[in-house]
Amino acid sequence: MAHSHNDCTPHSHTHVMYLASYNCASFRVLSSASATSDEEAAAKAAAVNADTGAPTIFDKIISKEIPANIVYEDEAVLAFRDISPKAPVHVLVIPKSRDGLTELGKAEKRHEEILGRLLYAANIVAEKEGITEGFRVVINSGPSACQSVYHLHLHVLGGRQMKWPPG
Amino acid sequence: MAHSHNDCTPHSHTHVMYLASYNCASFRVLSSASATSDEEAAAKAAAVNADTGAPTIFDKIISKEIPANIVYEDEAVLAFRDISPKAPVHVLVIPKSRDGLTELGKAEKRHEEILGRLLYAANIVAEKEGITEGFRVVINSGPSACQSVYHLHLHVLGGRQMKWPPG
Repeated sequence: MAHSHNDCTPHSHTHVMYLASYNCASFRVLSSASATSDEEAAAKAAAVNADTGAPTIFDKIISKEIPANIVYEDEAVLAFRDISPKAPVHVLVIPKSRDGLTELGKAEKRHEEILGRLLYAANIVAEKEGITEGFRVVINSGPSACQSVYHLHLHVLGGRQMKWPPG
Repeated sequence: MAHSHNDCTPHSHTHVMYLASYNCASFRVLSSASATSDEEAAAKAAAVNADTGAPTIFDKIISKEIPANIVYEDEAVLAFRDISPKAPVHVLVIPKSRDGLTELGKAEKRHEEILGRLLYAANIVAEKEGITEGFRVVINSGPSACQSVYHLHLHVLGGRQMKWPPG
C-alpha cells in the first residue's frame, strides 16, 4: 500500500518505506516520521547532494513508480498534491524533464520556455482547484530557502488567507 | 525629494506624497505611514480595483517618473527593491508591459514567454545580489494571497534563512 500524498501521519500497517516532504525537510524513514521540528536543518541536509544530479523521488513520481495525487499533467509538466500541505490546496508543479534544473538558481537562458510553461501551469492548477480568491506561488532555491528536493518545483498554495511575510 | 524604496519609515521633510508597499498592503498616505497591522485588510481593499485595468504605481516606476532602486533591467523586465523589505534582499521583478497580467491568475497561454523571462530574471537578480545560499521567489495572486499592486510582480527574497510555511 502506498502512502497518501496528503497524509503525512505514520501508518502502522504498511509496506511504505518512507514519507517524503517536498517542503522544507529531507526524506524521512517511516519509523521516524513524526513531525520534524527543525525543517531548516533537514533542508540543509538535503542540500548536501543537491548538485550531484542524482535522481530524486520526483523521478519515480513522474514514472508512476510511486503513486501521487495528480492534479494536472501535460507533455512537459506534472502537478500533484504536496504530502505535507500547508494550505487547503497545496500542489507542486514540476518539469517532467529536469534538464539541469535542480533548482531555480541553476536556470539558464535556454530554460525560459519551460519556466514559462511551469508558471502558466500553476495558474491552470489554481483554476482547476477553484481557488479563485487567490493563490500564492513559491519557489525555493537552495538550503536557506528551505528547498529539499533538488528537482525544480513550484508550490501552489491557496484556500486560506495567506500571511505576510512569506516565511 | 523622492522616497527611498528600501525605507518605509515616514520622512518629516519631504515632498513625497505617499509611501507604497508592494507586499500585502495598499498604498498609504504619508501622514498615516506607520506600520499597518492589518496587511490582509489592506490587500483586500487594494483588490477592489484589481481588474479595472487602471494604472498602478508600477507604471510610474517603469516610466522613471517615480525613482526606484533598480537592480536589473532589460527590454522586457524591470527589477527594483521593495520599499518594505522582508529580507536583507527583497527585489520585485515585473514585466514592463502589463499586457493584461494584472495578476498571475489572469495569465493566458500567450503569456508563457514573458512568464519565463520573469522567472529567469529572478535568477539573474539573485546572482547579482550574491544570495548564493539560496533565495525564495513568491508570486501573490489575488487578495487572499496578499497581492496589493495589480501589475504582476515576482518577489525575490534572500540573505536570511527563510521559514516554512511560506506565510
